Amino acid sequence: MVQLGLVGLGKMGFNMRERLRAAGHEVVGYDRAADVSDTASLADLVAALDAPRMVWVMVPAGDATSQTVLELRDLLSEGDLLIDGGNSRYTEDKVNAGLLGEKGIGYLDVGVSGGVWGKENGYGLMAGGSAEDIERAMPIFDSLRPEGPREEGFAHAGPVGAGHYAKMVHNGIEYGLMQAYAEGFELLEASDVIENVPAVIKAWQRGTVVRSWLLDLLVRALDEDPELDDLEGYVEDSGEGRWTLEEAINNAVPAPVISAALFARFASRQEDSAAMRAVAALRNQFGGHSVKKIVE
Amino acid sequence: MVQLGLVGLGKMGFNMRERLRAAGHEVVGYDRAADVSDTASLADLVAALDAPRMVWVMVPAGDATSQTVLELRDLLSEGDLLIDGGNSRYTEDKVNAGLLGEKGIGYLDVGVSGGVWGKENGYGLMAGGSAEDIERAMPIFDSLRPEGPREEGFAHAGPVGAGHYAKMVHNGIEYGLMQAYAEGFELLEASDVIENVPAVIKAWQRGTVVRSWLLDLLVRALDEDPELDDLEGYVEDSGEGRWTLEEAINNAVPAPVISAALFARFASRQEDSAAMRAVAALRNQFGGHSVKKIVE
Amino acid sequence: MVQLGLVGLGKMGFNMRERLRAAGHEVVGYDRAADVSDTASLADLVAALDAPRMVWVMVPAGDATSQTVLELRDLLSEGDLLIDGGNSRYTEDKVNAGLLGEKGIGYLDVGVSGGVWGKENGYGLMAGGSAEDIERAMPIFDSLRPEGPREEGFAHAGPVGAGHYAKMVHNGIEYGLMQAYAEGFELLEASDVIENVPAVIKAWQRGTVVRSWLLDLLVRALDEDPELDDLEGYVEDSGEGRWTLEEAINNAVPAPVISAALFARFASRQEDSAAMRAVAALRNQFGGHSVKKIVE
Amino acid sequence: MVQLGLVGLGKMGFNMRERLRAAGHEVVGYDRAADVSDTASLADLVAALDAPRMVWVMVPAGDATSQTVLELRDLLSEGDLLIDGGNSRYTEDKVNAGLLGEKGIGYLDVGVSGGVWGKENGYGLMAGGSAEDIERAMPIFDSLRPEGPREEGFAHAGPVGAGHYAKMVHNGIEYGLMQAYAEGFELLEASDVIENVPAVIKAWQRGTVVRSWLLDLLVRALDEDPELDDLEGYVEDSGEGRWTLEEAINNAVPAPVISAALFARFASRQEDSAAMRAVAALRNQFGGHSVKKIVE
Repeated sequence: MVQLGLVGLGKMGFNMRERLRAAGHEVVGYDRAADVSDTASLADLVAALDAPRMVWVMVPAGDATSQTVLELRDLLSEGDLLIDGGNSRYTEDKVNAGLLGEKGIGYLDVGVSGGVWGKENGYGLMAGGSAEDIERAMPIFDSLRPEGPREEGFAHAGPVGAGHYAKMVHNGIEYGLMQAYAEGFELLEASDVIENVPAVIKAWQRGTVVRSWLLDLLVRALDEDPELDDLEGYVEDSGEGRWTLEEAINNAVPAPVISAALFARFASRQEDSAAMRAVAALRNQFGGHSVKKIVE
Repeated sequence: MVQLGLVGLGKMGFNMRERLRAAGHEVVGYDRAADVSDTASLADLVAALDAPRMVWVMVPAGDATSQTVLELRDLLSEGDLLIDGGNSRYTEDKVNAGLLGEKGIGYLDVGVSGGVWGKENGYGLMAGGSAEDIERAMPIFDSLRPEGPREEGFAHAGPVGAGHYAKMVHNGIEYGLMQAYAEGFELLEASDVIENVPAVIKAWQRGTVVRSWLLDLLVRALDEDPELDDLEGYVEDSGEGRWTLEEAINNAVPAPVISAALFARFASRQEDSAAMRAVAALRNQFGGHSVKKIVE
Repeated sequence: MVQLGLVGLGKMGFNMRERLRAAGHEVVGYDRAADVSDTASLADLVAALDAPRMVWVMVPAGDATSQTVLELRDLLSEGDLLIDGGNSRYTEDKVNAGLLGEKGIGYLDVGVSGGVWGKENGYGLMAGGSAEDIERAMPIFDSLRPEGPREEGFAHAGPVGAGHYAKMVHNGIEYGLMQAYAEGFELLEASDVIENVPAVIKAWQRGTVVRSWLLDLLVRALDEDPELDDLEGYVEDSGEGRWTLEEAINNAVPAPVISAALFARFASRQEDSAAMRAVAALRNQFGGHSVKKIVE
Repeated sequence: MVQLGLVGLGKMGFNMRERLRAAGHEVVGYDRAADVSDTASLADLVAALDAPRMVWVMVPAGDATSQTVLELRDLLSEGDLLIDGGNSRYTEDKVNAGLLGEKGIGYLDVGVSGGVWGKENGYGLMAGGSAEDIERAMPIFDSLRPEGPREEGFAHAGPVGAGHYAKMVHNGIEYGLMQAYAEGFELLEASDVIENVPAVIKAWQRGTVVRSWLLDLLVRALDEDPELDDLEGYVEDSGEGRWTLEEAINNAVPAPVISAALFARFASRQEDSAAMRAVAALRNQFGGHSVKKIVE
């Protein structure tokens, strides 16, 4: 059993602390929200840990993570290890590793998948960094990952950056998978021959080629709301899908499915589309096709 | 100068009658709308023509065209020629040619492009049928098509069906072109560095690689409504785009741009998307991501 | 335990006979290949069954299925039941049900998923037809479907046609899912930060959002051939993907992911693309950009 | 008539010097290739100009442009004006304008369209910068742009960066337009009813909705090579398409057509696709579908 500092106790971090403590580890957590935090400050958290320390950062990607890394750089000492388990862009990892390395602090980047189910099921983990740092954090990884063979829930993907790169691609795939099921759902809904859409999707859970955990979740959603009409078709995106597409562009890799899934989300959030106004205007211009005028 | 029966005097047929008469042809028109029709019935129209007759059908594709062809089959005689100039699916042409051929009536299918501007500019024409029938109708084609070399505004594309096939592909391309401009328009609108979107698009009219007649029409539309916000981003589709995509499927031809343009129109007409409700539901299930609930 | 005639003993039918016999049913199989067939002819198969008979047709969709249905129509009698378990287009089902109904023969259409793994794991089943016919075939369905709650491996999707419609959509989704994983695989391969692509994919099997049976199969494939370079990127398609897209068109349902997956397969089979030759020619025309000339 | 320094005398710059001299301007050109250069060095070019100087940079985007701007920064003086007419990314413009502004040197970014035809037809121009700098360079713009109203071939798009942003979007649209024609070409080629593909495309030049300059160029290409089979379907991309897509991502603008056109280029350059190997492997795993093995 090991000792871990855990910064960020939101939906993910909070559950991870629970899972790690249940496994017998000593976890000291810090969060700006005092009601969930074990310490009053980052400095207190660092002070509460025995050197050489291991601190897992689980805060929103971008400025929040960068800021936290910089603060910890000042607080930690040579020989300590910082792990960024958030959804950071993999290009940030080299920057962070470099900043920490100047002070002799180790760095790992870890992609964590599993959402709110991870506390119970375990989290799929993809890590980037040196073999020694990975080895050092392995007791934590082994407790966070699901039961079963280690290699089915944990990968050492490569050097610093590889963990977040793998997680980025994982999420890009996730976008495509969800959109594939979604298009199928809409087609079933559109059909006049299918009488029971939820029953069809429920029946795909065993034996079929399309069975998956996402499908199980779709069944859960349909159990609660059989036509999914309690909610709007409005979908956010959170970074990794965009980065995956940018990485596809950088590497000249065709990614028609992942891009289509991302664009469908963009479109879902538009009340009206400038592009489609242009198409409507063009049809009106050449063909005299009627357009819908805004009436105020 | 020749004599022509013209069935269907809507937006297209009405203008074509004008253009043909201006060129000196004798046109007898029939339409169910008595105020624009020259004759009281199809039978009267046929009776008003000297054998061997030439009758151009310009009515909506589908049932209306099929019905008109069947009625004319009864009224016309051996040696007459029927021309379907509407936006029929090319697979209909063999059926119609066969039905008419049984009675010795010739058949041509002609794709007509140019919209409401054709009356003044002339119409682009793509014809399918036998060389003899084409030759016979050439005085009409020459008056309908734009000024300039015949081969730049008229093609004998192949046997019966080829005219409508060519027009179908033409319209599929048209979908893609419009969507390309439309995406560009939206990107210009989205930018915070572009101060004058209409000026940029106007400047593309001369010298650039993207100059085209559709671009000129977009400039016209922007002259009238600089942000195109008098209308909704709601776009109909009229058959040929769907058929083009089906033909791509039948021939295993990748058509990512034409399909994207068609799907963008489908999506533009949806108030809410079942597919995107499914994606929203899935994100909520695995990540606890918030969804927009319908409030009633 | 019931008695079943089974026509078609290929990869699917052969395994189904095994699974049904293992469950204790009496199965009489017929195939044109004498070495696997239990009877010498369709007529013999029918003669070997006690009335009222139940015959499951498991032959290639299209002409082979139509022909088999017509032959069985002559051989079967009022009160018998024919089940089409092949990958027929759902529009065929009404035709077949009508033809058989004239003679008082019942009809069910069943989509069967699970591939070569179904013999051991059971098959996911989606059925269309009347409640009575479904009830009658239920002992067979219960033995073919996987262990577990019936509704997780079997659905009565609706009237005749609904089973094949559901299977069609299932396969359309399957195209999208596979392409999503495939794009992710290519992105991992393209990265210079990922050192062990198979390890990353293997680690997605537990805990992650993208875990699925298809992912397990991808892991199997990578175990055998870690860079998948023993095979070509050449992918057939077998009908359902095309039909799904046509159905999307018919119902004005945007299907960007499913279409992208289908077009990727089309493109994978092209040695050279006429479309891309046109783009290369255009770039050469306006920009003097060099093109790759064919050297013979 | 004004005096202009012109750096970069490749395909574009060389022609522009010709056009500007034909219009009566004094152009001093510099290129590393001595045979086309008017001066021996950048320093000589600057020395040959009267202050306040105007220097147009027309070298490849990226490092070459950055390097040239830095060198000119050292050579030019307060009150001079530098114009970047290359295909730079618009985000570079603020950097360059800032570096030059520190020394009191003005900056304009100009997108130039028209390819090798510009010398004769004139170039479409989109400019970003201050109104004063634009005014100062207007004699040059007026000679480079096509005949006709200024606003149909030139736009002041906005502040620094707007010219290159407009050109970037222009090129993104161009990708979409070309791919739309290309898909249509492939569909015509695939049809067994179209007998004369080049004749059909030639006939679209007048009167049709799809007429454009790109279409005219396609006709030219088909005149030289009626099936375009002297060249390979291998297409490069040169930056702006990628940037357009990245900009779409940054602004959450759906760009399915532009992305499809870009991905088609990526795919055209792949001998074999890792993604499609993955799909082939998956089909083999679940369905026993045969795969094409690499035979060595």
